[in-house]
Amino acid sequence: MTDTVVSEPAFSQTARLEIGADEYRLRRERVFRLLQERQLDAVCVFGPTRVAYLSGFFFSPTERPIALILTADGRVAALLPQLELSHFQQQGPALDDSAIYPEYPGGGSGRHPLLFLRELLSRLGVLGRRIAADVDGYEHRWGYRGPALGAVLEQPVQADVALIDNLRMVKSATEIALMTEACRWGDHAHRLMQNSLGVGAEELLVSHGASLQATRDLLAALGERYVPKAREGLPANAMFIRGSNTAHPHGLHEAGAVKAGDVLVTGAYGVVGGYESELERTMIVGEPDARFQRYFAAMLAAQQVGLDALRPGRTCAEVEADVRRFIRVELGMDDLVRHHTGHAFGLEGHEHPFLDLDDHTVIEPGMVFSVEPGLYVPQFAGFRHSDTVVITSSGSERLSLYPRELDELVVPVG
Amino acid sequence: MTDTVVSEPAFSQTARLEIGADEYRLRRERVFRLLQERQLDAVCVFGPTRVAYLSGFFFSPTERPIALILTADGRVAALLPQLELSHFQQQGPALDDSAIYPEYPGGGSGRHPLLFLRELLSRLGVLGRRIAADVDGYEHRWGYRGPALGAVLEQPVQADVALIDNLRMVKSATEIALMTEACRWGDHAHRLMQNSLGVGAEELLVSHGASLQATRDLLAALGERYVPKAREGLPANAMFIRGSNTAHPHGLHEAGAVKAGDVLVTGAYGVVGGYESELERTMIVGEPDARFQRYFAAMLAAQQVGLDALRPGRTCAEVEADVRRFIRVELGMDDLVRHHTGHAFGLEGHEHPFLDLDDHTVIEPGMVFSVEPGLYVPQFAGFRHSDTVVITSSGSERLSLYPRELDELVVPVG
Repeated sequence: MTDTVVSEPAFSQTARLEIGADEYRLRRERVFRLLQERQLDAVCVFGPTRVAYLSGFFFSPTERPIALILTADGRVAALLPQLELSHFQQQGPALDDSAIYPEYPGGGSGRHPLLFLRELLSRLGVLGRRIAADVDGYEHRWGYRGPALGAVLEQPVQADVALIDNLRMVKSATEIALMTEACRWGDHAHRLMQNSLGVGAEELLVSHGASLQATRDLLAALGERYVPKAREGLPANAMFIRGSNTAHPHGLHEAGAVKAGDVLVTGAYGVVGGYESELERTMIVGEPDARFQRYFAAMLAAQQVGLDALRPGRTCAEVEADVRRFIRVELGMDDLVRHHTGHAFGLEGHEHPFLDLDDHTVIEPGMVFSVEPGLYVPQFAGFRHSDTVVITSSGSERLSLYPRELDELVVPVG
Repeated sequence: MTDTVVSEPAFSQTARLEIGADEYRLRRERVFRLLQERQLDAVCVFGPTRVAYLSGFFFSPTERPIALILTADGRVAALLPQLELSHFQQQGPALDDSAIYPEYPGGGSGRHPLLFLRELLSRLGVLGRRIAADVDGYEHRWGYRGPALGAVLEQPVQADVALIDNLRMVKSATEIALMTEACRWGDHAHRLMQNSLGVGAEELLVSHGASLQATRDLLAALGERYVPKAREGLPANAMFIRGSNTAHPHGLHEAGAVKAGDVLVTGAYGVVGGYESELERTMIVGEPDARFQRYFAAMLAAQQVGLDALRPGRTCAEVEADVRRFIRVELGMDDLVRHHTGHAFGLEGHEHPFLDLDDHTVIEPGMVFSVEPGLYVPQFAGFRHSDTVVITSSGSERLSLYPRELDELVVPVG
């Protein structure tokens, strides 16, 4: 775990592209120290991404609660459904203790899974002492029903997602290397998609055709160095929405075909070692008219302000203030803004902190942000580029390298 | 909303395959009545699937909280980020009131989004009265941090996912029609995948190649009748895991190619109008040996016991008891069980209730379950078929119609 960005390659040309056991151990040691500093005796971690972050155990989250327990004296334990036991043993660290429950809601045990967790905490000698959690009980995924952890333990629980998530804010050299590799494949998927775009192209088919070909290329290039960390999805993806649907920042897919004059807002990402990248582009089908050109140029200039504003020592709010001032004063387009400039990310598509006027987190080297100020013109179109940007010791560096200029983003007609 | 399965087609040959405004209104009216019966004044619904279930507003859930508020006197209101306002107006019902916040965490407002919700509840005249919620505050998705709803409102909140989710247990004729259509496309994707399977086939490429072709066929067949309800993913999907990885019930993808002798456990599903189907098959590459045949036959017989056991008036636990008794007494394979027989589903891949020894829900016509008892032989392979089954007035009917017999599930070698 380093706090600065290093230029040496984090992986050899033959290493598997995933976080190694040593880095997972170092992450847990940081938690042990945090618990000691805060005079906490143990923490129960329920969030699936947080469990993976601390253990290397990636799984398909369901209604079956899973928890990783770390104690201040350095022990590691887990609550697991029988269903995932062999799977945890394959991927996760050695455990000092565990509670294996037969099934949710009970599998014939007559007991809710969190009661098995209570017993485990009792065996660990921390019941009745100071227990923290990321969230106060397993969250309601896929038909799960259950009580708060505090109610099961009959004691207060210090629930705070920041306890673990603040450790995730600054990425290590290895994490940045995985995100850099992910960016390569997001860029590649986007290039293949752009090459297949044209009038009559069907949203879903062009997107997934490009994603599939990019994945084929990734597997051929990386071979066994690529280690999937999910049950579904591809490691290289591209998609787009089109026309007036782009005026909704988070428009869903629509059936139908690309037409001349359509504005497209794209999204492409890779996933390597569980780490994601982000790339979005605004495109036009056919020659752009003056109105399109004006908004595109405005959006591109606003994104450049965001890229220039990012450097260590400033706060997220200061970066956002620069962008919003530019949009308001220089562009006079404040009424077209629908969201802030960007967000951190890594194992999840959005993570804390946010480039937002109300987020006063100080920016540090090794943080990774999307930079994506958007302009949304009702009934016409949305304008948004997004790039993956890592904070360096003196400024920032773009990891997604796809062209940003208009002449590179025109889909030819006829 | 009907409580029985009807045989008439729920959709004409030209109708868009989605729930209509009338059915969404009927769902909300059921909630209004529930609130009155329980002497509650309002409910705040945070779960994204529950919001979609009650409003028709499908969206990409992020760190930005969204809530639908229904009052006992029949009003509908919403908490929305500015980002999703135009999108809600396009899909959702007319609102009696709304609170639009600029951005999470604050977008310059200096206020957490849940404070906007508090103001809205105050304007609706329900603050300080009896307020329920599905969950006690927005759950922690993608970097979201926030307080419990009760803390923000400074009053107790009756948090209970069952309030809304119990309404989702019995599917209407329209919902069943959508799931039937989803099954057709899950079956089709699985057929295309089976046709492309062979020695050397790469897990991700064969899966997604079949999914893409099945989606192409779906779009050609349904045209504008198909209405996407998500920002990512395909409406027809097939995947598989292979070899000893199948011994983990929820094994993740692995890189590499299919080999002769591999056991495959597949999964395929369609998504139509937001509703999913489920289909899983155990397959073998090359001629099955005696050991494989024995476990396959055992699994198939156990699934048949489950299918035969499902009928209205029985409880979920009774169905599971039949299956477990068969596996223990007739097969002598209780040690190979890792999970219960199945789960309800619909808008989500798993929903309450569960075919589990500790779930005493009474089975009713219109419920839809997966039936998928599995046998897992350590270091060898897993054996599991899963089918989508709807409860009828007298028994059950399989909606996924893919072949279940071994001779139909052998991948030829050479």
